[in-house]
Parts: sequence; C-alpha cells; structure tokens
Amino acid sequence: MLTKNTIKQIASLRQQKFRKEFGLFVVEGRKMTEELLQSDFEIVGLYATKDFITDYPAFSEAETVTEVQMQQMSGQDTPPGILAAVKIPQYGEIKTTSQLTLALDGISNPGNMGTLIRTAEWFGIQDVVCSSDCVELWNSKVVQATMGSLFRVKVWSTDLSSFLKQAKANGTSIYGALLEGENLFQLTSKPNGILVIGSESHGIRTDVLPCITHPITIPRVDGSATESLNAAVAGAILMAEMTK
Amino acid sequence: MLTKNTIKQIASLRQQKFRKEFGLFVVEGRKMTEELLQSDFEIVGLYATKDFITDYPAFSEAETVTEVQMQQMSGQDTPPGILAAVKIPQYGEIKTTSQLTLALDGISNPGNMGTLIRTAEWFGIQDVVCSSDCVELWNSKVVQATMGSLFRVKVWSTDLSSFLKQAKANGTSIYGALLEGENLFQLTSKPNGILVIGSESHGIRTDVLPCITHPITIPRVDGSATESLNAAVAGAILMAEMTK
Repeated sequence: MLTKNTIKQIASLRQQKFRKEFGLFVVEGRKMTEELLQSDFEIVGLYATKDFITDYPAFSEAETVTEVQMQQMSGQDTPPGILAAVKIPQYGEIKTTSQLTLALDGISNPGNMGTLIRTAEWFGIQDVVCSSDCVELWNSKVVQATMGSLFRVKVWSTDLSSFLKQAKANGTSIYGALLEGENLFQLTSKPNGILVIGSESHGIRTDVLPCITHPITIPRVDGSATESLNAAVAGAILMAEMTK
Repeated sequence: MLTKNTIKQIASLRQQKFRKEFGLFVVEGRKMTEELLQSDFEIVGLYATKDFITDYPAFSEAETVTEVQMQQMSGQDTPPGILAAVKIPQYGEIKTTSQLTLALDGISNPGNMGTLIRTAEWFGIQDVVCSSDCVELWNSKVVQATMGSLFRVKVWSTDLSSFLKQAKANGTSIYGALLEGENLFQLTSKPNGILVIGSESHGIRTDVLPCITHPITIPRVDGSATESLNAAVAGAILMAEMTK
C-alpha cells in the first residue's frame, strides 16, 4: 500500500538533491511508461489512478492510487494518471560504442538536452557525454523531451575537457560545431569520433576549444541576419549530415 | 510620461485577445530590442529602467521607468530592464519570394514555432505560412524563440489546406515531412516550392495530406526505437538539406 512517506519521497524527486540522495527519478505518462517497461531500467514503484487503468487495462499491474495521491506525487499540473519511480542507472566508466559520440558542453535548457538525446538515437548515436554542468538528465523536463530515448542511449556526466583531452591524445577525431570551420556539407569522409555541441549562450567554451581537431560550420545563407542556430537544431543538422 | 493606463494596456498584451484588440505585442530584452530597432517594425513605446540605461547608454532614447513599473508591464519573472510595445504588422495577401517557403501545420509549442522561424532565416527562407491554429506568432515565448528572426521573415496565418490546394493547382511542388517518403538524402534536384512540417502530436493532418506532391522522409538508423523527431528538429534537418 502507498504510504504517506512514499508519497512524500516521490514528490521530493522534483528536486535534484533528493534524486541524488535517493538515486531515483520519476517517469510520467502512458507513452513514457510504456517505453520504460520495455527497458532494462529498474522500477521501484508504478502507480496509476483507477480511471487510467480503466482506460488502459494493459497497465493493471500498477498500484491503484487516488486522484489526490497522484496529484501529490506528480510534478505536472495535470497529472497524466500514471507515474513510476525508477532507479537512476549507474553506467560506470565511459565506454563509447557507436561510430559517432555526442558530447554536450554546458547545455542548460532541458528541452534542448532531451531533444539532443532523442535526435542522437534517431541517427544511431548510442553514447552521449555531458559536461558536469549540463542540466541534469533526470530532471522531469529532460526526461519528457527525450521521448523515451534516455532509456536506450547511454548518457554520462563528466569533466568534459579532461575527457576530450584524453580522447584527442588517443588520436580520436573531435568535431566541434563552430561559427568558423569546415563547411558541413563539404565533408569529404564519413566522420568517426566525437561531435561537440556547445551551450546556448556560450557555444563551445574556452577549456574545451583546444580539444577540437575538426571545427565544422553549418553554412548560413549570405545576407542572413541570424547570429546562431538553436543548440538542439545545430546538433540535429550536424548529426543528420555526419551519420548519413 | 508613462500613465497607469499605458502600464495596464502593456500588461494586458500577455493575452492574445488584447494583442488582437490593440494590434500590439511586446518585445523584451537587450538583444531583441536591438534587432527590433534595426527593423521596419513600428514601436509605439520603448521603456527602460534607470539601471538598464546606465549599463547600456545606447538605449538612452527609451523612456525611463521605475523597477516597479517595469515589473508591472513585463511578462517575465525577472524583467530584463528594457521593453517595447510594437505594432503587429499586416502583411496582407500571401506573396512568397524565396525558392522554398516553409508551411507549418498546427505547430502548438511556442519554442518549436520560434525555432522554426529562426532556422528558416538561417537557410534563406523568407516566407512562412502557418495554419490558423498554430500558436500565435506574437506570443512572448514565440517572439523570444525566434531570436529576432520574426522582424525579418514574413509569417502569414491562413487556412493552410486551401492555400496549399491552390498552390498545387498552380503547379507548385509541395514537399511534406512524413515517416514514409523519398529519402531526404537522395533528392536528385534542388527543391523549389513549399515544405510542410506537421504538428508535434499529429504530424501533417488529413486535410493537408492530399496537397503533398513530394513526401520526404528523414531516414532513421535501422533498429532505432525512436518513433519521431521533434518538429523543430525535423524542420531544421529538412531545411538544411533542401537549401544547401
């Protein structure tokens, strides 16, 4: 039975410090829960309202909770009616497996973060390495924006400049999205290595910049007055072109 | 001098019905105001706090207001210190000028809407035609997400299926982002016509679908479990590839 303490604990997971303390995060909504159930993630509690289970009997294994209890646990204004508390996985040492790895330098917008992971999976990128000041992956807005990709793509958080320095020393090609660089549409070989996307406000930062072996630019039409692209958009165009 | 009535009117512009009634919208922030001042848009009021003008003397033409007055007018939790009330332009009949026109079918997320317009400008697309149920362009979140592109790109709101039906009858090629279609990366000629992006939840809708003459798909890596891309991301990848 759902205790008051459990409700309180789940509600506390809206805050990063409690996600860290308990090693748990929250997944809400039918679609996301479906993807969760198909993943290897460890569910410690699955709760649904009676109305939700009536509408979606496939979720009848969930513990039934009242609307009020759901409202207390949910981080959403209009709770979708199903919610899971899930163990945060420990991926250990960074071991990349796909031809291209995505590296994110200080992405702070949760929507951009989630969208970048979702897009990476679309193009077959299985590994994402984030600087430790990127928005936390288990934040509900990031979780939601991944549309389930975070259950399948491995995302590490690390000291990005040290990681890239080491990779560069090992001879890995490190591509960086910059305003000045080789024209993305004129790359002569299929890239193999790490693609770095910078933050919304600062781009690739000065500690990471010396690690870039291949600056790449998305050419802008002559005369266009736009100064930059959205970080998730720039990342997507690069991933599309570099994995095709 | 700034009257209480003006403050009230500007505050009311957070709501679409008052933007429509007064034919005005609000621009906030240094960067956005700079881009506004370089545009043809008609400013009916430009207000800044004393501190803001001290930091940025270039804006000394703005009327000085108190922090409290700014707080009352601003739609933001932390007002950036400069705010303009601007006339909503009337673009009249749709007249497209660039080789590719972007058409948006039911985009409801303000961030996606603004990002699509910003990305369009990057790739030289000067004209965007929206279905009348897209999120309203003068919504502050859309304005912000365009990063100034809305001052330069023309955006129309119309009955999209009628517009496309007419365009198709006139022999215009109408490209649609769909899950089944020609591989984007294997297009043989440089597209010329209209590119339709569907909404986040429904894609291109059934009334618009018969107008598509060229279904185009962004190929997903074999075995990827992602079902779709974010609408702004899909639009960006298509625009990048189709205008390069």
